[in-house]
Amino acid sequence: LIKAFKKSSKSINYIESLRGKRATFMLALANSKTANIKGISQAGIDGLLHLTPTLDCEFLATGSIFSIDEIAKTDSGIPSPALITRAIHELNPFNLEFLDLGIEKKPKIEYFDIFDFKLKPSDRIDENAKIDSRSIFEKAINFANDYELKSDYLIVAETIPSGTTTAEASAKALGYDTKGLYASSFSKAPKDIKRKTIDRALLNISNDLDVFDRLSSVSDNMLIFYAGFIIGLSKKCRVILAGGTQLATVLLIINSILKEDKFTFSPENLALITTKWIYEDKHSDIEALLELLDFEVFGYYSDFDFSKSRFDILKKYDSGEAKEGVGAGGALGYASLNGISNESILESIENILERF
Amino acid sequence: LIKAFKKSSKSINYIESLRGKRATFMLALANSKTANIKGISQAGIDGLLHLTPTLDCEFLATGSIFSIDEIAKTDSGIPSPALITRAIHELNPFNLEFLDLGIEKKPKIEYFDIFDFKLKPSDRIDENAKIDSRSIFEKAINFANDYELKSDYLIVAETIPSGTTTAEASAKALGYDTKGLYASSFSKAPKDIKRKTIDRALLNISNDLDVFDRLSSVSDNMLIFYAGFIIGLSKKCRVILAGGTQLATVLLIINSILKEDKFTFSPENLALITTKWIYEDKHSDIEALLELLDFEVFGYYSDFDFSKSRFDILKKYDSGEAKEGVGAGGALGYASLNGISNESILESIENILERF
Repeated sequence: LIKAFKKSSKSINYIESLRGKRATFMLALANSKTANIKGISQAGIDGLLHLTPTLDCEFLATGSIFSIDEIAKTDSGIPSPALITRAIHELNPFNLEFLDLGIEKKPKIEYFDIFDFKLKPSDRIDENAKIDSRSIFEKAINFANDYELKSDYLIVAETIPSGTTTAEASAKALGYDTKGLYASSFSKAPKDIKRKTIDRALLNISNDLDVFDRLSSVSDNMLIFYAGFIIGLSKKCRVILAGGTQLATVLLIINSILKEDKFTFSPENLALITTKWIYEDKHSDIEALLELLDFEVFGYYSDFDFSKSRFDILKKYDSGEAKEGVGAGGALGYASLNGISNESILESIENILERF
Repeated sequence: LIKAFKKSSKSINYIESLRGKRATFMLALANSKTANIKGISQAGIDGLLHLTPTLDCEFLATGSIFSIDEIAKTDSGIPSPALITRAIHELNPFNLEFLDLGIEKKPKIEYFDIFDFKLKPSDRIDENAKIDSRSIFEKAINFANDYELKSDYLIVAETIPSGTTTAEASAKALGYDTKGLYASSFSKAPKDIKRKTIDRALLNISNDLDVFDRLSSVSDNMLIFYAGFIIGLSKKCRVILAGGTQLATVLLIINSILKEDKFTFSPENLALITTKWIYEDKHSDIEALLELLDFEVFGYYSDFDFSKSRFDILKKYDSGEAKEGVGAGGALGYASLNGISNESILESIENILERF
């Protein structure tokens, strides 16, 4: 089942009108060198964290990994949420599309649609990320204008290690009061390292900087690209942001951009879908993030969890590890909207896990 | 399973060729003030019978009710057949479309396709329904010409309280001998009230009236609209009439119109699918109604029933309450044609009932 953060006739209508419709699932791959800061993220294999987007892409697309021998895992061995999204792709396939927004290692996939924007991974935000944010934003707007949706609606998702850190830094740099609102892929988030990194990053922000200058210094390619892409696409079709606090940050960035520049923007076409783990996370507050917006975007979560799983490693999701990523929440919502039961999803996930 | 009224290679072929194909499910919403006659129908909440189309629409679209606190029920508490159609929409979604053919209260739905023909609810047939039937018929023909089917075939269904009464009056006014052929949403149909209403309505019919004048006086907006729409659409695509004696009446009306006017009409594209409760109903005879036609339209029924249900209230369907409506029979047929078992349907129906 898929549940609205706030139950209203309009929020129920929005999501129910997508029932049975076909979705394109778009996954943005990006790296930020922020992930090289020791201990900042566990979204991947220790020492090979930068490979997570590459492996997530290969795994979602093919159910196999080519660039290394194993699926991306947290330090405690939790498999990437790509596992969830892949399981749903096997049950009720998406039209898959990938965005290369600057990654260390190209995924070994062929025959799939992968849009390459010729970007480099961004630098560490504590040393100034040095992103050409205006150029990325413009590329995104142009891409939205040219983009041809091949399904009824679009689901956008991301995979970028240390993405919650760059997201929180971005929101703070834009002046949002985000204390206690941001998530982490750790169950016990490494608050000290994250906080110090964000604090150092914010030292580069001064009052005279405009939105894009701020983002250039403390953000990541995914956040900036999606801000432009979603503004541009909102007037053309329904777009589901499949993610947690990072995709909520895309909306905060849009909110700030619209205060400085004029764009046609149709927020009524947007919604955010996340996992139950993010919705119920005590260390972050996705609902509160959406309430910082000057426009309304409905939020939803999937009620799927691993309480009935045979695998202890999966149950760790229920204790707050990993939580979200690779659009797992949106993929779970898509499954519900297409008549796939939680039992079938669990079975599909466990089958894949057994293959490995 | 879906069963043909008459087993033949052609009737089996017709329905099997729809296996696995995607359907648009179109629900016509209408009110006739005939439903205000005390005791004439139980298709809804006592005193709020006129809200049934509004509630059926909200419930089918969203699984929720917004215009009142509860799902439409008969006097004995049987939930509207919308429950069955909704359960199938959750298992194997339709492309939903709605027709507003004159209703008392607009449903609170957004984001869905709802075609509004700017019609008013028709008046009581015992006091002359005063329908501009020519204008409605023309609107329907034009709509059929412009209509773009978004799926492989179309299922048309209805929700209009007191619809069996206006249907029977229409058939009689057109000269069909329908004694004992018409159904009611009651298990013990209130024959006296219905009969008196129909008799009074027929006092307004004289031999010099043409088909449209007769319909204007004793019919309802749904019957007239669908007659035009189905004539117009029959040359373009396959159309399943999902219903019982009311949708059979649409065919009788078409039959009569074709005797007076010339239209391109392709009955081989049509079929009627109803429930087992209508097919086995001792008080009506859906097969005999189809045999009154000068053209052939195959009839089918779904063999689904509630004999294995945990809910006594659902078992009342098996003793002849409610029987059909909101295209329940056609929806059940659609489910079978898409590999959904009767067990899954029952589970989905009971899950929804438990949510309420």
